[in-house]
Amino acid sequence: MQQVLDYVDPFIGTGGHGHTFPGALVPFGMVQLSPDNPSKGWDWTSGYHYSDNILLGFSHTHLSGTGVGDMLDVLVMPFRGDYQARAKDDKGRIFTTYGHDKESASPGYYSLYLPEEQVQAELTASTRTGVHRYRFDGEQDAKLLFDLGYAQNYDKPVVTFLRVEDKYTLTGYRLSTGWAKNQPIYFVAKFDAPFSHQLLNDLQAVKGDQLQAEKGKIVLNFGKPAKAIEAKVALSYTSIAGAKANLAAETAQLGFEQVKQQAAQAWVNQLGKFQVEDADKTNKTKFYTALYHAFVAPQVFHDVDGAFFGADGAVHKDKHYGRYSLFSLWDTFRALHPLLTLSNPEKVDDMVKSMLGFYDETGLLPTWDLMSNETDVMIGYHAVPVIVDAYLKGLTSANPEHIMAAIKASAMQDRFGIDLYRQYGYIPSELEVEAVSKTLEYAFDDWAIAQMAKALDKQDDYQLFSQRAQSYRTLFDASTGFMRGKDKHGEWVTPFNPTYVEHRNTDYTEANAWQYSFFVPHDVPGMIELFGGESPFVAKLDELFSTSSEMQGDVSPDISGLIGQYAHGNEPVHHVAYLYAFTADKHKGEARIKEIRDTMYLAQPDGLAGNDDLGQMSAWYVFSAMGFYPLNPVGGEYVLGTPQFEQATLSLANGHQLSVKKEGEGSVQSVWLNGEKLVSPILTHQQILQGGELRFVMAPRS
Amino acid sequence: MQQVLDYVDPFIGTGGHGHTFPGALVPFGMVQLSPDNPSKGWDWTSGYHYSDNILLGFSHTHLSGTGVGDMLDVLVMPFRGDYQARAKDDKGRIFTTYGHDKESASPGYYSLYLPEEQVQAELTASTRTGVHRYRFDGEQDAKLLFDLGYAQNYDKPVVTFLRVEDKYTLTGYRLSTGWAKNQPIYFVAKFDAPFSHQLLNDLQAVKGDQLQAEKGKIVLNFGKPAKAIEAKVALSYTSIAGAKANLAAETAQLGFEQVKQQAAQAWVNQLGKFQVEDADKTNKTKFYTALYHAFVAPQVFHDVDGAFFGADGAVHKDKHYGRYSLFSLWDTFRALHPLLTLSNPEKVDDMVKSMLGFYDETGLLPTWDLMSNETDVMIGYHAVPVIVDAYLKGLTSANPEHIMAAIKASAMQDRFGIDLYRQYGYIPSELEVEAVSKTLEYAFDDWAIAQMAKALDKQDDYQLFSQRAQSYRTLFDASTGFMRGKDKHGEWVTPFNPTYVEHRNTDYTEANAWQYSFFVPHDVPGMIELFGGESPFVAKLDELFSTSSEMQGDVSPDISGLIGQYAHGNEPVHHVAYLYAFTADKHKGEARIKEIRDTMYLAQPDGLAGNDDLGQMSAWYVFSAMGFYPLNPVGGEYVLGTPQFEQATLSLANGHQLSVKKEGEGSVQSVWLNGEKLVSPILTHQQILQGGELRFVMAPRS
Repeated sequence: MQQVLDYVDPFIGTGGHGHTFPGALVPFGMVQLSPDNPSKGWDWTSGYHYSDNILLGFSHTHLSGTGVGDMLDVLVMPFRGDYQARAKDDKGRIFTTYGHDKESASPGYYSLYLPEEQVQAELTASTRTGVHRYRFDGEQDAKLLFDLGYAQNYDKPVVTFLRVEDKYTLTGYRLSTGWAKNQPIYFVAKFDAPFSHQLLNDLQAVKGDQLQAEKGKIVLNFGKPAKAIEAKVALSYTSIAGAKANLAAETAQLGFEQVKQQAAQAWVNQLGKFQVEDADKTNKTKFYTALYHAFVAPQVFHDVDGAFFGADGAVHKDKHYGRYSLFSLWDTFRALHPLLTLSNPEKVDDMVKSMLGFYDETGLLPTWDLMSNETDVMIGYHAVPVIVDAYLKGLTSANPEHIMAAIKASAMQDRFGIDLYRQYGYIPSELEVEAVSKTLEYAFDDWAIAQMAKALDKQDDYQLFSQRAQSYRTLFDASTGFMRGKDKHGEWVTPFNPTYVEHRNTDYTEANAWQYSFFVPHDVPGMIELFGGESPFVAKLDELFSTSSEMQGDVSPDISGLIGQYAHGNEPVHHVAYLYAFTADKHKGEARIKEIRDTMYLAQPDGLAGNDDLGQMSAWYVFSAMGFYPLNPVGGEYVLGTPQFEQATLSLANGHQLSVKKEGEGSVQSVWLNGEKLVSPILTHQQILQGGELRFVMAPRS
Repeated sequence: MQQVLDYVDPFIGTGGHGHTFPGALVPFGMVQLSPDNPSKGWDWTSGYHYSDNILLGFSHTHLSGTGVGDMLDVLVMPFRGDYQARAKDDKGRIFTTYGHDKESASPGYYSLYLPEEQVQAELTASTRTGVHRYRFDGEQDAKLLFDLGYAQNYDKPVVTFLRVEDKYTLTGYRLSTGWAKNQPIYFVAKFDAPFSHQLLNDLQAVKGDQLQAEKGKIVLNFGKPAKAIEAKVALSYTSIAGAKANLAAETAQLGFEQVKQQAAQAWVNQLGKFQVEDADKTNKTKFYTALYHAFVAPQVFHDVDGAFFGADGAVHKDKHYGRYSLFSLWDTFRALHPLLTLSNPEKVDDMVKSMLGFYDETGLLPTWDLMSNETDVMIGYHAVPVIVDAYLKGLTSANPEHIMAAIKASAMQDRFGIDLYRQYGYIPSELEVEAVSKTLEYAFDDWAIAQMAKALDKQDDYQLFSQRAQSYRTLFDASTGFMRGKDKHGEWVTPFNPTYVEHRNTDYTEANAWQYSFFVPHDVPGMIELFGGESPFVAKLDELFSTSSEMQGDVSPDISGLIGQYAHGNEPVHHVAYLYAFTADKHKGEARIKEIRDTMYLAQPDGLAGNDDLGQMSAWYVFSAMGFYPLNPVGGEYVLGTPQFEQATLSLANGHQLSVKKEGEGSVQSVWLNGEKLVSPILTHQQILQGGELRFVMAPRS
């Protein structure tokens, strides 16, 4: 049963700039229970970095692959000895060292032996419950620290509350501010052994059974337990009562082993939708680990009774949909959300309604929704393509007029240069930062709005947004062959250097002109024409991949995974290798896709070329290994690439299966769907849903 | 109709150390809308001080008479000109000057003309809505600033949210931390004129219709309105939806004048329960203003649908009771809560259940509940006497077993020396600060628990807590005639100076030995015996009032209103003048009561001798003017004093009336209840409830 799980290595991406974490969770789980190291900087935003060997404890929420750190709520640390007498680090935290030789992880399970504490720690999880098992081997009393004051990266506690309800039950909440400005979280912890306790206001012991403080902690002493201690820690974003109901519904009747088994089964069910055959175990590991990382977010954000914390700072209870949070849309609109329309169409409606709920609560769809907080990180209004794609694929029952109002609200707002964009038809560089990237991405999002308007036969909106979708043309500088900044008088901005980068201070977002000049996913023929036709266009793509990787300015670590000036470690280029498919030089695209698969995704901790960004990097791999990619993520057209595996089968929610077969090696000679040769480089969503066999006939180029 | 309102002067207590505010509210209202000055220190904790003439705006929540500052949520400032160009104070706030000559206030209404802005500002309120009316006289555009970042005293914003829903509607929330660690508040503002707007992140203009920021503000521009602008601002502690429902239920259909009239009527109904006759308008003003200040808190804390923010940091919806907050119990258990059992018995059950709800949510009854946060200010577990009194008077339908569990939880906790108190039978001075005050107050609270146990026929608890109630005896030092600190070996602490004070660093709480040595309200005969009998006891009381007022140490401003070492400006002595009633020297008590009434309560802004403390100072006056006082606030025995008025009539909720008549002038010669001469100095709650005539026959002492 667990065969697919054997090919998941949760440590992939935990080194380098991957920013993943190795802990225990189920697909889309609210609880993501994982070990935390003391942060040494940007590469510790997930709480963990493979290069580290110092443990602060296990916290219940983590961000997988993001560029900014937050979360890490409700830290639990098993330890021995006198808490107050123990050595603390410079932030007043106890710590212990460990080695990777006694660490292991698989989907839904994590285990670590702590030699200094003589503790075997094991973690597993259900959707809303983290389950811990600690076997204390030594002679000293077995202790657990619950630290609600603990915070890293951008996060900072505002107030914490702890209450010992009885000798087996601890409850509490933690309100913090940081990247998410207003983030309450509630928990209940149930233990299978009785404890005595000591509350602490930061490092100061406090008497009693309950405490409200900025940095509340509690040490639970289990004495010398006869067996391993099991702790179930259920979360809620609405209330302690919600956490209790979540625990009751999910894990109250289960032991550690059962929860672990259910978590594994949940992953088998989720990952098993994809079956790939390959002689190379490494490729399978890369594939299933990418799949695994693709299903970490968006996250279940509602209690079992449907209650959730809304973006208006209040608790709502809407039984009509299950609320999800953690939408990093600038990253994930590209491939992750299209992947979910194939792997988990049953969840898409909830995700769409979660974004529409965010709009109802704040007046705007989310840009980067972190626990119902708009972080306003990154550009574009990319909830729009995700929602429109879901609508066009028939995956949401949301009221289309509601959708139309929400997506237009994003496009008609006055922030982030959107007013200038409407006024000038592009964003003048001197009036707004990242003017070129914004103009290009707004144009794409506007194209998506136009498709929605068309589907609803709203001619005025269709005309307006179709016209706005062409704005990309205004910024193409034929003399240099780049998308380039213009001032408000329509003059090109000088000096112009396509390899210059500077974070949040140029015409491009986390990129340079090379990396953004191909961003017209909604009108590839139009873009090719702009570049002067197919031949110059291909030459330009060739140059992108083959020119020097040297950059000037202040190169941010986001810009990684370089092939020439192509930077796979960040999102703006993710569709670019597939642009070759619209030319006669498809084989060049295939070669680049293979190169990226082979060099940017390695089956080792520092194997990811850049931040996994809540699964977008991984989703690129999944599609690219399957042999097709949603170059335009709206509307259900996938561009053919080159399959990784001799056979890959996708089991669809409708009961159909699509088998992708690779015959021979080399370049794609022809592609056959259910015996019919495909004449265009496009595979449609409808074709996939019908299932059958997609056959790639390969041969060396002659 | 409004006759009683003519005798209320909301400015009384706004100067000196009174800490009251002059703004608009209805009895027990959630909204307390009042002008704010820039704080110059402790005497500005209500947001306003009569000595000031600089206005920052009008905020919607205030604390009346407390010693610590918080609240002041949702500031609204009418102004003219360019917000960003205007002069700011050192905290970045715009301001304007005013004079008391153009300021007026009456119950439910406040008005102020701002000459520099050429604005007539008027405020009124319903329970959950503040209603503003601004007449802009000048030529410049009429503007309102809504400042959610504004904070004073202990308060600090964590995150604020503002959203323009349409040209007539602004919504938002404000999460702050301070004296109340976790204080969310939500609002909707509806205007009768359309506005354009400019959002600001602190002082930085931001585009768009919505903003989440630490210090969000918005300037609303109404252009040149033809008439005065009316704004209705409804609050909620649970959600914007809650605020909208509150507005819809209370004021949606009403104009300013109607709300103002309803507020006045609410005060007429509340204050009109007391009718006093007196030739002296000043005494009537003192009386009705004291009544007015007594009904400011506890405050309605639930939405119209019953939802409230609980002490576990989560929203609850309990239709079984209406939640109240703002319990300053160390102050108000003495006279305010007993007063409410007479004036508002219909609210007592909700208040009891609110405290029990707090216990359910945190494991402990509140000590000082500020918007569902335990501030842990002051000593004792004085929710106990309030709840037990309500139970014994038959005013709560709470489950008595629930009550018993809750009150015992307070008494059995280990914080604040309560563990030492159980262990030693008193609190050893070297082991806990304020050991004498705590021992005395715990003993009284334990007596209240014993009465509850007795009522429920719980013999074990009755015995235990009756015994604990005698702990006061342990600390009486017969050699000095004071309640005095003992160390753990039972030795008196030396040196001992009964006039020494030092804040939070002696055996006494905001007091010295003189001010605490008479705190045995539950066993006056036992106390008299300790002092050596009636004669030495009276001599000691005489000395209290006649000795020098000089104190040593570091005298906190709390200790004010001195007559000898008696300090009426703070609570520990509030019952002391009534102790004479248990002796043959009743006239001495009467004289002191009159002296206190005449010198500690003046009908002028700095007329209160100390902090009004959410109405406790005022409740003392109300009882003392009526002629009786709840020396022991539990169980319904009131000690007779000396009436202020020739006739005072209390209309009871049961339809009965009690008329208190004073015949003649001088000392009380005899007291007659419905024709029967009272032989003890006690009037019972039952006697009051039966109504009729309480006649004091007075004559000069011969």
